[in-house]
Amino acid sequence: MKKTLHEIAAFLNGRVSGDGHVVIEHIRGIDEAGEGDLTFISNAKYLKKIKTTHASAILVPPETEKTDKNLITVRDPYVAFGRMLGLYYPEEHDLPGTSGNAFIEEGASISEEATVYPGVYVGRGARIERRVTLYPGVCVGRHVVIDEDSILYPNVSVYRKCRIGKRVIIHAGVVVGSDGFGFAGPGRENVKIPQVGIVQIDDDVEIGANTTIDRGTIDKTWIQRGAKIDNLVQIAHNVVVGEDSVIVAQVGISGSTKLGKGVILGGQAGLVGHINIGDHVMIGAQSGVHEDLSPNQIVSGSPHMPHQKWLRVQACVSQLPELRKNMALLLKRMEKLERETPND
Amino acid sequence: MKKTLHEIAAFLNGRVSGDGHVVIEHIRGIDEAGEGDLTFISNAKYLKKIKTTHASAILVPPETEKTDKNLITVRDPYVAFGRMLGLYYPEEHDLPGTSGNAFIEEGASISEEATVYPGVYVGRGARIERRVTLYPGVCVGRHVVIDEDSILYPNVSVYRKCRIGKRVIIHAGVVVGSDGFGFAGPGRENVKIPQVGIVQIDDDVEIGANTTIDRGTIDKTWIQRGAKIDNLVQIAHNVVVGEDSVIVAQVGISGSTKLGKGVILGGQAGLVGHINIGDHVMIGAQSGVHEDLSPNQIVSGSPHMPHQKWLRVQACVSQLPELRKNMALLLKRMEKLERETPND
Amino acid sequence: MKKTLHEIAAFLNGRVSGDGHVVIEHIRGIDEAGEGDLTFISNAKYLKKIKTTHASAILVPPETEKTDKNLITVRDPYVAFGRMLGLYYPEEHDLPGTSGNAFIEEGASISEEATVYPGVYVGRGARIERRVTLYPGVCVGRHVVIDEDSILYPNVSVYRKCRIGKRVIIHAGVVVGSDGFGFAGPGRENVKIPQVGIVQIDDDVEIGANTTIDRGTIDKTWIQRGAKIDNLVQIAHNVVVGEDSVIVAQVGISGSTKLGKGVILGGQAGLVGHINIGDHVMIGAQSGVHEDLSPNQIVSGSPHMPHQKWLRVQACVSQLPELRKNMALLLKRMEKLERETPND
Repeated sequence: MKKTLHEIAAFLNGRVSGDGHVVIEHIRGIDEAGEGDLTFISNAKYLKKIKTTHASAILVPPETEKTDKNLITVRDPYVAFGRMLGLYYPEEHDLPGTSGNAFIEEGASISEEATVYPGVYVGRGARIERRVTLYPGVCVGRHVVIDEDSILYPNVSVYRKCRIGKRVIIHAGVVVGSDGFGFAGPGRENVKIPQVGIVQIDDDVEIGANTTIDRGTIDKTWIQRGAKIDNLVQIAHNVVVGEDSVIVAQVGISGSTKLGKGVILGGQAGLVGHINIGDHVMIGAQSGVHEDLSPNQIVSGSPHMPHQKWLRVQACVSQLPELRKNMALLLKRMEKLERETPND
Repeated sequence: MKKTLHEIAAFLNGRVSGDGHVVIEHIRGIDEAGEGDLTFISNAKYLKKIKTTHASAILVPPETEKTDKNLITVRDPYVAFGRMLGLYYPEEHDLPGTSGNAFIEEGASISEEATVYPGVYVGRGARIERRVTLYPGVCVGRHVVIDEDSILYPNVSVYRKCRIGKRVIIHAGVVVGSDGFGFAGPGRENVKIPQVGIVQIDDDVEIGANTTIDRGTIDKTWIQRGAKIDNLVQIAHNVVVGEDSVIVAQVGISGSTKLGKGVILGGQAGLVGHINIGDHVMIGAQSGVHEDLSPNQIVSGSPHMPHQKWLRVQACVSQLPELRKNMALLLKRMEKLERETPND
Repeated sequence: MKKTLHEIAAFLNGRVSGDGHVVIEHIRGIDEAGEGDLTFISNAKYLKKIKTTHASAILVPPETEKTDKNLITVRDPYVAFGRMLGLYYPEEHDLPGTSGNAFIEEGASISEEATVYPGVYVGRGARIERRVTLYPGVCVGRHVVIDEDSILYPNVSVYRKCRIGKRVIIHAGVVVGSDGFGFAGPGRENVKIPQVGIVQIDDDVEIGANTTIDRGTIDKTWIQRGAKIDNLVQIAHNVVVGEDSVIVAQVGISGSTKLGKGVILGGQAGLVGHINIGDHVMIGAQSGVHEDLSPNQIVSGSPHMPHQKWLRVQACVSQLPELRKNMALLLKRMEKLERETPND
C-alpha cells in the first residue's frame, strides 16, 4: 500500500509538519524503519530517537519539538499506529463454510456464515453463530454457545455448556471450563467436589494463549465485557473479572475472587480466593494480594502494600546490611557511653 | 430433581432443624440461592450470611446457632455440598465405543468399553483399558498405558511409554512426558542430554488444565496415588509427588525434588531441584524453597522460613522506613550525647 | 545393549579404574542402579554415594578419589552420561510420509522425507522441509516455514507466517505466533493494536511444553540459534532471546526486551518490557528485573540486585524482628542516658 503523509494525516485526523507529499509504503519500528517507512513514538523514553531514525515520517504526540524530520502530530500515537497497521496489513478472511473434515456431532448447530476448519470438533447441542471462526483442533463441548464474530484459534478446548459472547478472541491452547480445584480435606482425604457450573465470557473479551479458566463449582466463572487477559493466566472457579480489566501474563487468581471494572494486574501477580478488588485498582507485577482492596489505588509487593510505600520499603531493604552494621556500631558507642556516664 | 429436607438429611446423615417437608430443586451459592434452593456454609467467615440468604435451606456445621431458617446440620458441610452436587447434577456418560474418526494405529489395544472421540490419536503398542474416556484431540503416544476409568479431556498429549493409572482425571491441554530440561554446559554449549525415562501417574490422581509433567531423564517422574495438581503447574524430570499431595496453580518444581505424603504447595510457589520435602509440609503461596524440609512444618517466603517467623518478618518489612528514620534520629541523639559526655 | 567398561571408556575417551571387563546392560540413577548398571556423579553433593551405590560402575570427574568400586574417569560425567543414554536408548524414528488422515491445504508444500501424522493441519503456502516430524494435532498456519530436521510434538500451534529453523524441537502444546498483548488505553478503552509481525525461531532451538511466544506487533519476536526454553514460559511480542540463552520454566519476558548471548534466567523470574540484558547475565529464580543489565553479572531478588548483595540482604531480612527489638532496647537505653547526662 502507498499513501502520502497528507492522506495519512487526514485518515488519522493528525497534522503534518514537513513534507506532506512523502509516500509511505510500510509501517516499521523506530530502529528498523528506513526510506518509505512510517514509525511512531509513544513512550517519552524514545523521543531522542527522532534524531537517529531513518524513517520517512514519525507519528508523534502533541507538543513534540519540531525537527527536520517529517512528523504527523496525533492525539495518541500508539492508537494511530494501531490504525495504520490495520489499514496497511488487513487480516485475511477465509470464505465461510464448515470443512468436511471437521467432526460435527448430530444435534450441533453451525451457522452457514461460520468458518470451521478441518479437525474441529463440535458437540451436540452446541451453537456456533454467524462469522465465528474455529481453527483446527478446536474442541467445542456439548451445549456450548459461541456468539457472532468470535475467533477460536487452534487447539482451544471449551468444556460443555460454557457461553462465549460476540467478538471474543481466544488464542491457541486456551482451556475454558475445566474443573475448578475443589477438594475437601486437602492433603488428607482429597474428596473431589463436583464442579457443575459454567464459564461465561461476555462480548469483546480477548484471552491469551494457553490461559486456563475453570468452570464454577456452581453458578459461573465470569469474564465480563471488554476484559483482556494475556497468556498463561490462571482464573479459578467462580472468579469474576470486571469489565475492561487487563490481566498481564502468568497472573493467578484464586477461587471466588472478584475484580471490579478496569482493574489492571501486572504480570505474575497472585490473588488469594474470596476477596474483592475495587474498580480501577492497579496491582504491580509479582505482587501477592490477600485481602479486599478499595477502588482506585495502586499496590505492589508480596504481601502487597500501597505502591508509594512499597517504593520506600524497597529502598530500605537494599540498605539493610548497612542498617544492621550501623546498629552494631551504635550499640558499641552506647556501651562506651554507658561506661563513661557517672552512675548515681 | 426434587427432594424434601427430610430425604436429604437422611442421605447426608444430617439433622434437620426447621421444616423438613420443604422441597429442594437446586443447589446454589449463598448469595444467589432463593426459593427451592439448598446452599451451604463451611467457612466461618460466611456464617453471618445465614440471616440474609434467600435459600430455602442451608447445610451448616455442628454447633451452628439455631435461627428461623431451615438448617441441616452435618459433620462437614463442604463434603455434604459436594455429595448434593453429585446427586442433583450427575455427569452425563457417553455410550462406549471408538469413533470411526479417531486415528488408531495398528497395534494399539482399545477396550470395547472405552469411549474414544473423533480426532483422538492412539499410537501402536498403547493400551486403553475399560471405561476410559479420550476426548477430541487427545494424543496417546506409542506404548502408553491408560488404566480403567481414567478421563483425558481435549487436547491432552501423552508422550511414548508413559503410564497412567485408574480413575485418573487429566484436564485439557496437559502435557505428560515431554523431555526434561537437561543441558550440559548451560549458556555455553547447551548439549542436550537425552531424556529416556517415563512419567508414571498412579491411581486417583487429578491434573489441572495445561499443566506440564516432564519425563524422567532416566527412570521416571512419578505422581503418586491420590495427588491433586491444579492448572499450569510445572513438574520437572524425576520429581516425585507423594500420595495425596495437593499442588495449587502455577507452582514450579525443579528436577529430582521429592515431595512426601500430603504435602500442600500454595499457588506460584517454586522449589529448586534435588531437595526432599517431608510429609505434610505446607508451603505458602509464592514461596521459594531451596533446601530439604523436615515433616509437618509450615513455611512461607522467598527464601522460605517458618511461617510464624515470616509473619513477624513481614510486619517488620513494612515498617522499614520508620526503622531507618528512627535509626538516623538515634544517631543524632548519640552524637549529641557523646559531645556532652565528659571524656576522661 | 551390552558393552564392557573398556569399550565404554574407549567410546567416552575416559579411563577405567577397577575391572574393565565388567558388562554394562543399563544406565540408571545412582540410587536405583544395581548389578549390570552404569551410573554417574556430576554434582559433588553426591560424591559420598559412591560408597553406597550398587551400580556396577560409575562415571566420575577427574580427581575423584579411588575406591573399590569400578570407575570411569571422564572430563564431564554429565555429558558422558548423556552420550551413554543416546547410545543405549536410541530414539525410534518413523518412516517418512504424510498420513492420509492429515489435513493438508492445497498450496502447502511438504517434503516427501517429512513425517506427518494423522490429525495434523498444514495451511496453504506453508513449507515443510526434509526430515521434519509433525505429531498429531499440530497446526501449521498459512505461509509458515519449518526447516529441515525439526520436530513439532503433539498439539503445537504455529500461527501464520512464522519461521522455524533447522533441528528445532518444539514440545507439545507450545503456541508460536499468537497476538501480542497490545492495547491502547489499558483499563479504560482497551483499543486492540493489530499484531502484524511474526515469530522467527533460528536453528537448534528447543522450546518446552505449553510455552507461549507471541508474534511481533511489527517486525518479529526472535529466538536466536541454540537458545533453550523450558516449559510454561511467556515470551511477549518483539522480545529477542540471544544465542545459547537458557530460560527455565515459568519465566515471563515482557514486550521488546532483548536478551544477549548465553543469558540464563532462573525459574519464575520476570522481566519488564523494553530493557536490554547483556551477554552471559544470570538472573536468579523468582527475580524481578526492571532495568538494563550490563554483561557478565549475576542478579537476584525482586526488585533485582547483585546476587552477592542479595545474599547479605536476605540474611538481614530474616533477622528483622531482632533488629527491631534491639532498636527499641537501644532507644530505652538512650533515654536513660539522656536523663542521666548533665545538661549544661
